[in-house]
Amino acid sequence: MSHQEDLTAYIAAFVAELSKTGVKDVVISPGSRSTPMALVMAEHPDLRTHILVDERSASFFALGIAKATRKPVALLCTSGTAAANYYPAVIEASISRVPLLVLTADRPHELRDVGAPQAIDQLHLYGKNVKWFVEMAPPERTEDMIRYARTVCGRAAATASSYPQGPVHLNFPFREPLIPKLDGNLFELPERAGGYIDIQTGHISLSDEMFKRIAEDLATYKNGIIVCGQIDNSEFAERVIALADSLKFPIIADPLSQLRSGDHDGRHIVDTYDAFLRNEDAKEALKPDVIIRFGAMPVSKALTIFIKENRHARQFVIDSGAGWREPTMSASDMYYCDEALFCEKISSAVGHVKESSYLDKWLALNDTAKQQLMDISGVEELSEGKLFHLLAEMLPEGATLFVGNSMPIRDLDSFFLLNEKNIKVMANRGANGIDGIVSTALGVASVSQPCYLVLGDLTLYHDLNGLLASKLYDIDINILLINNNGGGIFSFLPQANEPKHFEMLFGTPLDLDFSHVVAMYKGKYDLIKDWEHFFETFVENQRVKGLKVMEIRTARDSNMMEHRNLWKSVSREITALLNGEES
Amino acid sequence: MSHQEDLTAYIAAFVAELSKTGVKDVVISPGSRSTPMALVMAEHPDLRTHILVDERSASFFALGIAKATRKPVALLCTSGTAAANYYPAVIEASISRVPLLVLTADRPHELRDVGAPQAIDQLHLYGKNVKWFVEMAPPERTEDMIRYARTVCGRAAATASSYPQGPVHLNFPFREPLIPKLDGNLFELPERAGGYIDIQTGHISLSDEMFKRIAEDLATYKNGIIVCGQIDNSEFAERVIALADSLKFPIIADPLSQLRSGDHDGRHIVDTYDAFLRNEDAKEALKPDVIIRFGAMPVSKALTIFIKENRHARQFVIDSGAGWREPTMSASDMYYCDEALFCEKISSAVGHVKESSYLDKWLALNDTAKQQLMDISGVEELSEGKLFHLLAEMLPEGATLFVGNSMPIRDLDSFFLLNEKNIKVMANRGANGIDGIVSTALGVASVSQPCYLVLGDLTLYHDLNGLLASKLYDIDINILLINNNGGGIFSFLPQANEPKHFEMLFGTPLDLDFSHVVAMYKGKYDLIKDWEHFFETFVENQRVKGLKVMEIRTARDSNMMEHRNLWKSVSREITALLNGEES
Repeated sequence: MSHQEDLTAYIAAFVAELSKTGVKDVVISPGSRSTPMALVMAEHPDLRTHILVDERSASFFALGIAKATRKPVALLCTSGTAAANYYPAVIEASISRVPLLVLTADRPHELRDVGAPQAIDQLHLYGKNVKWFVEMAPPERTEDMIRYARTVCGRAAATASSYPQGPVHLNFPFREPLIPKLDGNLFELPERAGGYIDIQTGHISLSDEMFKRIAEDLATYKNGIIVCGQIDNSEFAERVIALADSLKFPIIADPLSQLRSGDHDGRHIVDTYDAFLRNEDAKEALKPDVIIRFGAMPVSKALTIFIKENRHARQFVIDSGAGWREPTMSASDMYYCDEALFCEKISSAVGHVKESSYLDKWLALNDTAKQQLMDISGVEELSEGKLFHLLAEMLPEGATLFVGNSMPIRDLDSFFLLNEKNIKVMANRGANGIDGIVSTALGVASVSQPCYLVLGDLTLYHDLNGLLASKLYDIDINILLINNNGGGIFSFLPQANEPKHFEMLFGTPLDLDFSHVVAMYKGKYDLIKDWEHFFETFVENQRVKGLKVMEIRTARDSNMMEHRNLWKSVSREITALLNGEES
Repeated sequence: MSHQEDLTAYIAAFVAELSKTGVKDVVISPGSRSTPMALVMAEHPDLRTHILVDERSASFFALGIAKATRKPVALLCTSGTAAANYYPAVIEASISRVPLLVLTADRPHELRDVGAPQAIDQLHLYGKNVKWFVEMAPPERTEDMIRYARTVCGRAAATASSYPQGPVHLNFPFREPLIPKLDGNLFELPERAGGYIDIQTGHISLSDEMFKRIAEDLATYKNGIIVCGQIDNSEFAERVIALADSLKFPIIADPLSQLRSGDHDGRHIVDTYDAFLRNEDAKEALKPDVIIRFGAMPVSKALTIFIKENRHARQFVIDSGAGWREPTMSASDMYYCDEALFCEKISSAVGHVKESSYLDKWLALNDTAKQQLMDISGVEELSEGKLFHLLAEMLPEGATLFVGNSMPIRDLDSFFLLNEKNIKVMANRGANGIDGIVSTALGVASVSQPCYLVLGDLTLYHDLNGLLASKLYDIDINILLINNNGGGIFSFLPQANEPKHFEMLFGTPLDLDFSHVVAMYKGKYDLIKDWEHFFETFVENQRVKGLKVMEIRTARDSNMMEHRNLWKSVSREITALLNGEES
């Protein structure tokens, strides 16, 4: 049985190395061609295997684990369109810089492109959306081929993990028979038992002269702002706050910057800019002469417009991933450097600015806007905005809040404001899809508790299959479903002014009673009647395990009006404040 | 508003031309970037628009319509991972040769690869899996650009429709504002009002000398078989039967060859080969010296092995799509020629063979196997095999039977035997995925009634979202769910002998009560208790509109035993028959 021994030794070496590189989780979708890898992975004592039938949900689940842990997660599927179902999650991982190891089983060479069953062209299946693609050599157990399997494995994990993190795709041709021999010391590595090759990537840094020059440049500007978009660097928050304190610049903090929650010093943090940057007087009063930007582009369209309208300003974009997160065509300086290091070096070089009336203006406008936005807390009917306002108060310490795209991320931006809790806020903001949100959140929940997911009805529908993971693996998750029966965001877009075809093409009401599907997945479902019912159920559910869905029904029209009215009242007060200052 | 006029005129010309090329159905998934195209399509009086939120289900739904009509169906989605969700269906369309026009909206050039929201690299998104990819020019209304939009549209439809049919991808960069002007004579074409360019593709044919030579060659062989896999050519059945009658060759008819049902002459059709070609005596007795093969490779593994074991035989493969449907590495002659034409030319050239003892042997073995397989009709408990046997009797005239991959297609092969009804049998046998089956069947059902879908529980789960189409568009469908709580096919594969990890990796029981989800989609659900209940419900459901699900619960182990026992009894009788003949 030389074939079986070749197959077993080669795959066992790969899987043993996978574990040595630090991979803990593998998400497997059942299939025939992937049998040898699946069986060997299941046999490994240190790998946690998750078996999910729908590959699309499986891949987003893996994405969720990898987002939460920042470590590569392996995905395994059989040959054919199974692998194509990973495509959305692979693209999201690529753009949002999440490490994934995509392992696809394939037919051997002689069964490709000849009409054999379940055979598709898997070479470069994900195009330029992976950092590295390898067509693996057919299994052999010569010393060199064992070294090859281990080396590729280590290299793949290192490539996925190094900045910018992202997906890697390895395609394995397997010939029948597909059954490995699961006995003996399967994972004993005769050579270099501790791991084949230790791969370390350094952090990207500018030279000290360059830091000095940047600090000197910055000292020539008076009116500066720091803009922080989505970023995932545990040291960043403290360092950027120190930088802001040195420069006396406000920090415009996107909800995904992880700066709106935590016990750090929040004095310079501006969190209501999306509301007040809609006001022309505010924009006039706040014209910056320098912008320092970290992380992805923020969610707020008002902020994006503000940046575009201030192209005269010097704009530094700092990116440890050496990418091009600059859709505004306004940056003047692009620095590829670790963000936390940049903050540290610059703040120690610039010294300490004493005061800034420009900063004070930002903070005053922020306070005024916040007072108006707080009006939402008095709303008696169920409201999308108020929900996010309440969450900042109600979420337990240490919680993760995962939000869907479209409206929830925007309401998060508007209403989830500065607080001192330790709350991690997450979303799929690489490609901003409504696909795979349930699965991504469940992947997060499988490694980080407690976990709350807020999403709309179309997003829930899109990944209903994701709920299965909660049932199969007893994962606790609190889902807050905002059901406005359709695509709420379109009410805010220009097509809302064209009533013809609107409901058919954009409103798209599905009229689904989700309690049925929650019952199928053995979850607890509550249709929230009013805020009191919401408070009670929220507290009650903290003691309930598994899947819990609280459905909050809202109306798209009144939601849109509520937002418009709030923005108007913010704008009115901002104008009053600014005119008062001027007089 | 020159921008709006450019946008409107360009898109309206494209959409008007789309309708002129004969496209009737467009499947749209809601989104913002695709707004101009969606609104203009909705405005067209002759296009039928279907709005489906999950792009994966939407694309398989479009595939189903195109499979049933053999005409291109247009798909439209917004930018981002929405388009990536089409990937599985695009690959299936490519391999199974189904015409699709995939239209994706994209960000304009200046918003690509710069971290703008919902922007991914959509150029060549589906790689080599489309017949043609075009990055469309930005909208303009010069005469030339209107001609360009119309020409590309006509060319795309012709490319998708010409043999081998397949998917085409057009990517449209749209700049904001995205609202077209929906007034005036939107679809009035000032130039060539009847369609811009008439594109005709001829049928592929060999020369008369070549047909003559093939006929002469064939006359030198005595023991020939005709193998027909999945094929979709309305003239083929009659012609291949005439060819078989001329040559006195048996026709080995795959269930997707459309030869097992119909009022055509069935005397030469062999339908139980999957059972008797497992017997070594039968294979010895039936060694062919020539094989003529049409269509895709048949489903039966026993037949594939038989072909491989007879590599000494001359083997002609006829393919109007000029592909390479030949995984057995045994063909000796590959002819790219319209299949119906080939049959016609060859049968008129070969004259008429009087009789063939070789043919008689195939037919005798077929009769013997059929008698044994008929034993399944006496099975009292609910059985997967018996269900397919019954369907041949019970399906109404004119029905379409769509079957899932994995076990249903194999049981169809074994038990859905020759009948005189007009029944169309369909499956997704390009890449044989378990993804998108519900949606494909619903696409078929939207244009062809009555429609029956037989599938397993994992396949239903994979595309539960597909059920929404039935609710939204009042599509009648009869779903026969064979619920054996997991992956039934794996019980037939070698891993079934390795009990360790088997249930976890391959059995994968989901323990789902599907009645809940059927209720959510407002369908009628029946859990079938016994055969009598099945008969009653089957008849009753013919008078019920909408979604109807009959769930038949079976056990994977006893199903496998039932199949094994039947094959054993077929084998025993075949051996007895052949020994009797010899004595």
